[in-house]
Amino acid sequence: MSHEQYQSIILNLQECVQACNHCYDACLQEDDVKMMRQCIRLDRECADICVLLAQALSRGTPFAGELASVCAKICEACGIECKKHQHVHCQRCAEACFKSAEACKQLTG
Amino acid sequence: MSHEQYQSIILNLQECVQACNHCYDACLQEDDVKMMRQCIRLDRECADICVLLAQALSRGTPFAGELASVCAKICEACGIECKKHQHVHCQRCAEACFKSAEACKQLTG
Amino acid sequence: MSHEQYQSIILNLQECVQACNHCYDACLQEDDVKMMRQCIRLDRECADICVLLAQALSRGTPFAGELASVCAKICEACGIECKKHQHVHCQRCAEACFKSAEACKQLTG
Amino acid sequence: MSHEQYQSIILNLQECVQACNHCYDACLQEDDVKMMRQCIRLDRECADICVLLAQALSRGTPFAGELASVCAKICEACGIECKKHQHVHCQRCAEACFKSAEACKQLTG
Repeated sequence: MSHEQYQSIILNLQECVQACNHCYDACLQEDDVKMMRQCIRLDRECADICVLLAQALSRGTPFAGELASVCAKICEACGIECKKHQHVHCQRCAEACFKSAEACKQLTG
Repeated sequence: MSHEQYQSIILNLQECVQACNHCYDACLQEDDVKMMRQCIRLDRECADICVLLAQALSRGTPFAGELASVCAKICEACGIECKKHQHVHCQRCAEACFKSAEACKQLTG
Repeated sequence: MSHEQYQSIILNLQECVQACNHCYDACLQEDDVKMMRQCIRLDRECADICVLLAQALSRGTPFAGELASVCAKICEACGIECKKHQHVHCQRCAEACFKSAEACKQLTG
Repeated sequence: MSHEQYQSIILNLQECVQACNHCYDACLQEDDVKMMRQCIRLDRECADICVLLAQALSRGTPFAGELASVCAKICEACGIECKKHQHVHCQRCAEACFKSAEACKQLTG
C-alpha cells in the first residue's frame, strides 16, 4: 500500500472521530435524548477505536489488519444506527462512518 | 459470564497495562536500548489496546468479543517478544501479557 | 514519593475509570436519561483523563504534576454532578471521583 | 471562538499526533536509537495528550482551557527535544509541535 493511500485512510478515520464526537455531543442536547441512547453509545465506541487505529497506523503498527477489521465492524454498526435518525448530525455521522469502514477494508486484505 | 469473571478480566488488563508501561519505561533506560526496540514498540501497542478494551468492557460495549480477540493477539505478540529478554521487567511483562491474553480468550467464545 | 504511594494513586485512578464507565452505562439505561445528560458527559470526560494519567504515571511521564492537576479538576466536577443524583451508580461514582481527585492532589505539590 | 478557529485547532492537533507518531516510529529505527530515547518518550506523551484534547474539543468538553494549557506545555517540551536532532522526522515533528502549542494557547486565554 502506498504512503498516499495510508494517509488517506488516517484522514478518513480522523473525520469519522470528529463526526462521531459531534454527533454524540449533539445527541446529548436533543429533546428526544432517550431515543438517541444507542447512537450516543455507538458514537463513543466508534470514536475510540478510530482514534486508536489512526494512532496505530501513524506509528507503523504491526497489527494494522487486525485493528482495521474490528474498526470496520464498529464503524458500520455506528453508521447503521445513525442512519436511522433524521438529525443532520446523525446523517453526516452515518456517512463518515460508512466511508471510514470502507477505508478500513483496504487494510484487511 | 458473571460480573465477577468480567471484573477479573478488567483487572488482568489493567495489570498488563501497568506491566507494559513499566517495561517500556525501563527498556528506554537500558544500555542495550537498540536490542529493546521491538519490545518498546510492542509494549505501547499492547498497553493501548488493553486500555481500550478495559474501558470498553467497563461501559458495556457491544463489541467485547471482537475487541478481546484482537487484544489477545497483541498481548501474545508482546509476551513472546518480552519473554526473549532477560531483564526482570521484560519477564514480568511477558507473564502479565500471557495472563491477559488468556483472560481475553474467555470473551471470544 | 514512594513507589507504594504511586501505585496507590494509579489504583484510585483505575477504580475511578471503572466507576465512571459503569455510571455512564447505567445512566444511558435510566428512564430519566434526559436528567442524566451532564452526568453521562462528565463520566466520559473523567474516565478519559484518568486513563491517560494512569498510563502516563505507569510509564514515568515527566508531566505527572500538570496532568494530575487537570485530572483533579475534572474528577471533582464529575463527582459534584454525580453526587446530585440518587442512583446507586451515581453515588458510588461520586465517591470514586472524590477519592481520585484527592489522590491526584498528592502529585500536584 | 468561531467554529472555524476551533476546527483549525483540531486540525493542528491531528497533524501533531501524526508527526509525533511518525517521529517515534522513525526514531526507533535510527542507528543512534540511544540518543533518541527522550525524543521517543516525548513523542508518545505528546501524541497521547493531543489525541485526548482533539477528541475532547470535538465533543464540546467543558475543560477546553485546562486541557489545552497542559497540552501546550507538553507540545513545547516535545518540540524543544525534537528540534535538537537533525533527522528530518525530528525537525518536522518540532515544527508540528510548536504549531500545535500555539494553537492550544488560543484556548487558554
